[in-house]
Amino acid sequence: MIRKTRLFTPGPTPLLPAAQFAMAAADIHHRTAEFRALYQRVLDQLKTFVGTKNDVLLLASSGTGAMEASVSNLTSPGDRVLVLSTGKFGERWTAITKAFGCEVDVVSAPYGQTFSLDEVRKALKPETRAVFLQATESSTGVRNDVQGVAELLKKANSNALLVVDAITGLGTTHFDVDAWGVDVIIGGSQKAVMIPPGLAYLSVSDRAWEAMETSRNPRYYFDLRKERKNAHKGESSYTPAVSLIAGLGAALDFIAAQGGGDLAAGRKALVDNAETCAAMTRAAVEALGLKLFAPVSPAAAATAVLPPAGVDSGVIVKELKSRFGAVITNGQGEMKGQIFRVAHIGLFDYMDTIAIIGALEQVAASPLKIPGFQFGHALAAAQKVFAETGSSAKKETAEPVGAR
Amino acid sequence: MIRKTRLFTPGPTPLLPAAQFAMAAADIHHRTAEFRALYQRVLDQLKTFVGTKNDVLLLASSGTGAMEASVSNLTSPGDRVLVLSTGKFGERWTAITKAFGCEVDVVSAPYGQTFSLDEVRKALKPETRAVFLQATESSTGVRNDVQGVAELLKKANSNALLVVDAITGLGTTHFDVDAWGVDVIIGGSQKAVMIPPGLAYLSVSDRAWEAMETSRNPRYYFDLRKERKNAHKGESSYTPAVSLIAGLGAALDFIAAQGGGDLAAGRKALVDNAETCAAMTRAAVEALGLKLFAPVSPAAAATAVLPPAGVDSGVIVKELKSRFGAVITNGQGEMKGQIFRVAHIGLFDYMDTIAIIGALEQVAASPLKIPGFQFGHALAAAQKVFAETGSSAKKETAEPVGAR
Repeated sequence: MIRKTRLFTPGPTPLLPAAQFAMAAADIHHRTAEFRALYQRVLDQLKTFVGTKNDVLLLASSGTGAMEASVSNLTSPGDRVLVLSTGKFGERWTAITKAFGCEVDVVSAPYGQTFSLDEVRKALKPETRAVFLQATESSTGVRNDVQGVAELLKKANSNALLVVDAITGLGTTHFDVDAWGVDVIIGGSQKAVMIPPGLAYLSVSDRAWEAMETSRNPRYYFDLRKERKNAHKGESSYTPAVSLIAGLGAALDFIAAQGGGDLAAGRKALVDNAETCAAMTRAAVEALGLKLFAPVSPAAAATAVLPPAGVDSGVIVKELKSRFGAVITNGQGEMKGQIFRVAHIGLFDYMDTIAIIGALEQVAASPLKIPGFQFGHALAAAQKVFAETGSSAKKETAEPVGAR
Repeated sequence: MIRKTRLFTPGPTPLLPAAQFAMAAADIHHRTAEFRALYQRVLDQLKTFVGTKNDVLLLASSGTGAMEASVSNLTSPGDRVLVLSTGKFGERWTAITKAFGCEVDVVSAPYGQTFSLDEVRKALKPETRAVFLQATESSTGVRNDVQGVAELLKKANSNALLVVDAITGLGTTHFDVDAWGVDVIIGGSQKAVMIPPGLAYLSVSDRAWEAMETSRNPRYYFDLRKERKNAHKGESSYTPAVSLIAGLGAALDFIAAQGGGDLAAGRKALVDNAETCAAMTRAAVEALGLKLFAPVSPAAAATAVLPPAGVDSGVIVKELKSRFGAVITNGQGEMKGQIFRVAHIGLFDYMDTIAIIGALEQVAASPLKIPGFQFGHALAAAQKVFAETGSSAKKETAEPVGAR
């Protein structure tokens, strides 16, 4: 049969057609009034999308670039920092902070679990300069308690800056950045905002701007103070990724349309959308008799699943691709072969979700031959979740994507 | 939730991305060597796609234009012709032949049924100049027996020309045009070849070319002899729809890829694909307790379904669009409100098909509240059909659409 390629991956995520058209049309120079108007508009929209009054900056880099920027701008060699690590991306915080000479305390949870706030409290020191964590750890499908950590820091009267990698968290998790006191929150273009990789964005609090005055790590490309100064003039410090920025503008317009023209409402709708897709998928996976890898604190960004005993998860990844054109992800690093991951971040809808579950049923039937398998059971479980949650959501206001 | 617009309509059908890109790039003049090379290549590919050694011509028109061309080029005022009518498009043959002054005999079947060959035999007269029919009547979801009619004409030693509207039949039905003796067979761009409306194509037999020498109906834009003369030089008589032709070339390349690089095999794969999607849909619909409108001779192009008693089919059309972004079609003319139609022609795959069935289940649950409804039953019926037929097809050779 015909098989269309469909990404069910936690980044890159499926591209928004309106953003693709905007990118294709973005034949403009970056030192012009035309670009400045676009840039200023997108930066303003990003503030609403992130949900903050703080400055939001855009960088021509992957999300890891913005992670590095938050370390290089906020720390000095010898600073003590605390990393809350629940997977591969938590380990990346440790690697970056070490690369910039920090003394790194780590609270880590086994893969598939989140940290306990008690352990965080114990690991926090008076001299801790910053706390780094993921909102959602997409390598394991875990959601971490950002709000809990933020409250803990306040209660402890800590001066530590709170830096959140929300690269897969933004658009799949509700945040109240300013009320919680998140100093830096980081997003990436190839995630909830439905455009290709190449852009990172981050919001920076007043406290963080102050902290930069005394931090002594070297930075040039990722110099956030310079970037802010230029951003206030509608410029980027270095050549910006123009087409991606044009695409981002179109994507933020689309997200606003999901909220009836209100971007903040659209952001909430996008999170609810991911939650519904994730809940459908979790119900289906459990109806198949498979186990969730992160059952206690699952992220809406992606669902990580354990294959049947004795089966390499790569078989499932390969079958879905070769027979259905559906691209999901294997586990990363030592989790390879141990889990498979289906994403819900960004431009997924009911039709996508029911289709990937259908394909998963086919793989469960053959070659997996899961004991007791029956066609339709997993689909029915997902259908019931949708009927109870997805369709009971408030009346849809936005036109379907691509509607004319 | 997010809802992507998805066409499940029997024309226009979903666009092939590679064809969209080719159309966007087609910034060429039509009286150049570059265009002539493209045109010649596409005309050659079309012969293979249609499965004929006869000339195939392209017209900048809808399919109806090619229907008119076959009438105006092959008949004269006062000619007796036979129309085999099984729905709205059969009625169009009657209207066109009458408009060109023919004396029209009609064998018609009630909507949802096909004609009997016995009736055709009885209606055929020694002086019948041409027989006009649809391969598949997309207004009712019926498949007609083109091969049976062709054999009947041969056995009857009839001189009648056989003219087949296969606008939704090509790519959803197996034909052996030359062996059967089909004189004219007509296709349209917005159907199995996955590009927008605006092009029609038709193959013309030697017998038909001869017949044109004596036909006296007026024609200018649709003068097929002139068009053939120009086509042999790689030209069109009038300004061709250049971007659509470029898109058609890309689409035919894609169809060839479905056959491992062999366009004839790709055509067969495309028909099998539609058959599998249709069989899944029919099984699901019956599992829902709904009745097929054309149960005896269903077309693979589209499945027509009767709504539950007392329900206007427009409700189902509207629910699928507003809640899932899925566009299906209502009945045409007096069938409006009486049936709904889900298409399988062109770029549909397993994922599309299982998704539309899932959405249909949601509508069956609410607002239809079909008695005895259970989530997963219709999906399971479709899953079993796919497991038995779709996945047992010979090893896939083509890469998924859009694979990099």
